[in-house]
Amino acid sequence: MAADKPQAVIDQLRTLLPDDGLITDAAGLKPYECDGLTAIREQPWVVALPETEAQVQKILQICHTHKVPVVPRGAGTGLSGGARPMRSGVVLGLSKMNKILDIDVQNCTARLQPGVRNLAISQAAEPHGLYYAPDPSSQIACSIGGNVAENSGGVHCLKYGLTVHNLRGVRVVTIAGEVLELGGPLLDSPGLDLLAVMCGSEGMLGIVTEVTVALLPKPPAVVVMLTAFDSVNEAGQAVADIISEGIIPAGMEMMDQLAVQAAEQFAHAGYPQDAAAILIIELDGAGEEIDSLAGMVSRIVDNAGATSIDIATDSSAQARLWKGRKSAFPAVGRLAPDYYCMDGTIPRHRLSEVLDKINQLSAEYNLPVANVFHAGDGNLHPLILFDSNVPGQLAATEEMGGKILELCVAVGGTVTGEHGVGVEKLNQMCVQFNSMEIEQFQRLKLAWDPDNLLNPDKGIPTLTRCGELGGMHVRHGELPFPEIERF
Amino acid sequence: MAADKPQAVIDQLRTLLPDDGLITDAAGLKPYECDGLTAIREQPWVVALPETEAQVQKILQICHTHKVPVVPRGAGTGLSGGARPMRSGVVLGLSKMNKILDIDVQNCTARLQPGVRNLAISQAAEPHGLYYAPDPSSQIACSIGGNVAENSGGVHCLKYGLTVHNLRGVRVVTIAGEVLELGGPLLDSPGLDLLAVMCGSEGMLGIVTEVTVALLPKPPAVVVMLTAFDSVNEAGQAVADIISEGIIPAGMEMMDQLAVQAAEQFAHAGYPQDAAAILIIELDGAGEEIDSLAGMVSRIVDNAGATSIDIATDSSAQARLWKGRKSAFPAVGRLAPDYYCMDGTIPRHRLSEVLDKINQLSAEYNLPVANVFHAGDGNLHPLILFDSNVPGQLAATEEMGGKILELCVAVGGTVTGEHGVGVEKLNQMCVQFNSMEIEQFQRLKLAWDPDNLLNPDKGIPTLTRCGELGGMHVRHGELPFPEIERF
Repeated sequence: MAADKPQAVIDQLRTLLPDDGLITDAAGLKPYECDGLTAIREQPWVVALPETEAQVQKILQICHTHKVPVVPRGAGTGLSGGARPMRSGVVLGLSKMNKILDIDVQNCTARLQPGVRNLAISQAAEPHGLYYAPDPSSQIACSIGGNVAENSGGVHCLKYGLTVHNLRGVRVVTIAGEVLELGGPLLDSPGLDLLAVMCGSEGMLGIVTEVTVALLPKPPAVVVMLTAFDSVNEAGQAVADIISEGIIPAGMEMMDQLAVQAAEQFAHAGYPQDAAAILIIELDGAGEEIDSLAGMVSRIVDNAGATSIDIATDSSAQARLWKGRKSAFPAVGRLAPDYYCMDGTIPRHRLSEVLDKINQLSAEYNLPVANVFHAGDGNLHPLILFDSNVPGQLAATEEMGGKILELCVAVGGTVTGEHGVGVEKLNQMCVQFNSMEIEQFQRLKLAWDPDNLLNPDKGIPTLTRCGELGGMHVRHGELPFPEIERF
Repeated sequence: MAADKPQAVIDQLRTLLPDDGLITDAAGLKPYECDGLTAIREQPWVVALPETEAQVQKILQICHTHKVPVVPRGAGTGLSGGARPMRSGVVLGLSKMNKILDIDVQNCTARLQPGVRNLAISQAAEPHGLYYAPDPSSQIACSIGGNVAENSGGVHCLKYGLTVHNLRGVRVVTIAGEVLELGGPLLDSPGLDLLAVMCGSEGMLGIVTEVTVALLPKPPAVVVMLTAFDSVNEAGQAVADIISEGIIPAGMEMMDQLAVQAAEQFAHAGYPQDAAAILIIELDGAGEEIDSLAGMVSRIVDNAGATSIDIATDSSAQARLWKGRKSAFPAVGRLAPDYYCMDGTIPRHRLSEVLDKINQLSAEYNLPVANVFHAGDGNLHPLILFDSNVPGQLAATEEMGGKILELCVAVGGTVTGEHGVGVEKLNQMCVQFNSMEIEQFQRLKLAWDPDNLLNPDKGIPTLTRCGELGGMHVRHGELPFPEIERF
């Protein structure tokens, strides 16, 4: 192991960083053993916490020279294990680089260090009537650098897009310690779109040291509607009907009965606990427009069979409705010792059959599932409830989770909506992509990081792994769920 | 030259393609000598016109085996010379692959062969109340494959984004003849964002054989306003004030006096020929919203000093107002034997000083300039008028054009807005990017195309070229225009 952990690396990092910028003792390393995917843990060798871009450059140069792997980490809230550390590697934590560098009101942009928390951006922009649209459920804690790494979404991405759609530029340090400026404050930039390829690259290509995002004017008026249904199918129909009418709500979220009951008991948001499904619909825009849209949406959900429609027009009532949804994950966490949050995306019109199939899997594996999802854009978050102290339940849960993702691919969807691939979905990447596509991902990775030092073994499976699974070239060939109609 | 033009390539192409799918005679090759950048011409060796993806695969495999360069071509309307052919290379024309494969009303997407014309997409979507937002001025002729290659914009990209923001997926054939599916109909897809890097890659990475784009619901109401000003500065102020109020028009276009006069004499759009500048503002949305927005915009432009405000609410009057703008390029073409259309982008608030500087350059070089631009997003299109029959004028024009692009970089802008780099802006890429950034572009290119056969010598300059220009590492160091305040 000595060869894997050259003492020279620690010595050089010590001269570079202040005492509280380098963690090497077991107690200090403990919090860095996992990210939000807590089922997968490993103690890192050392954690480095730089405060400047120059320190990031030096750290990478040291690791590059000694061929030591580097695992970047933002706030550690990721759900696919993208920040899972390595026993022989350095965790590069960006939490100390948390300054808001500039709010440019005229160009509607914010320039940020990577450790700035997502919610802090909108708070800083608020006095100027602006906000930052992408809002992951973890927005109190998660960092903009992590959002870029995972191409994070949130409840408003239906109308306003994912991180990539709101990103204007980054400064990034390569594994060789070079600084690149990609993108910029303007809409287009010449050359290959290295900015987009950085976004969602899960720390495999470079370390982001500065982020410029677009800010949006706060909408003049907002309405939040809570609608209840006697079946998930009716709620799904309402979603399809709203979109077909050409209405794009700011957010459109569905929760099934188990999720509703858990959220209500936790957050007291006023959700009807007897509903089979609820739909939370947020409309934003000009005041007059919202009134007419709210009327149209009411008629559509009514026709689809809604049993109740509540409309919240003041911000405190709206916050209460959203509180239930935003706390759905921790709320479900009270129903069982553990839960596993999946993240897949499907075409909207396949929703009810996919939920039926998930229910079948739930019965087969005898593991309850609560469903919470961004219904408007087809991004599902089934939460599988289990108890890791029962032998075999974690493995069964992972197997069932994998089947849910493969089901998403079978109906023409994808294995991730906003949580990234990380270590969690490496096997399902082999189902989603054929060997030529996986190879092209790898060629691109090596064009940035020829020694494969930046977050290795994340995001992109090896062809060997895919071959062992027997899962290659399957997209239009053999897939699980032969009874499901192919896309 | 024989080694450069192996007869085996022609022989194999002949067995693959029908007679009218292979052009080798001088008369037939003539139309392929240049694209929309007509100043730069070269006769290609051979033009291949496949009708199927399988033929594209075979053509690329043949060229790959014999190490023959391939220059892809859509409709040939590009303005940066991206489709300029090579004497020793094959032009791969996609014009015969022009079928609309599917309009998916439920998911609001269209699946297209690359040769489908931009305008044909909206025409096919029209019966479903949908349209495709990006609308280059050449939209009658330009193809969606070319739009993807150049990441094209148009007058509506202020609100609806460039091609990349409206693109959902592509099928692409690599130089080795492999087919990759990148992206898909859903909002996110796992893995590295190869779709975004393909978009705007100017044919250097692969050949797009199928394109899936997002369609938008047609806005319920549209208003087009024509406003006139006594100075370009006042018009620029109006643009800034509208955006600062949080209003994002569907389009906001400025034309200066020379452009206005040319367009009016050509298109009889009703433009005031004595105005120093006009601003065309399109608002779209719900009916009530538009009325209130139009009122706000009227007050803002009035405060900024507008001398006249005309509001067109019916579609024929709107079409007339747009006709002048959309025919501005050919109209300016009647003022001089030749014109050179530049394409740079600047931060909105630097508009008036950049126009002052362009006027200075115009006086220095004694070459008139007409300015037409997407004012809302800072994308300038100065048209330099010249006569290629006057010895030295083409060279002077190119030199002046280069200075305009460098001016854009000096104020914090970019050397392209929507026309791509092609062969035209290779030198300015050395001003925009440092050597590490250029190298990273090249590493990425070679990760797709190790033999550099796909559209070589376009888009990315060599470091040697940049070194010869002495233009490297300049972004925050030495730049032209020392008198201009740096960004």
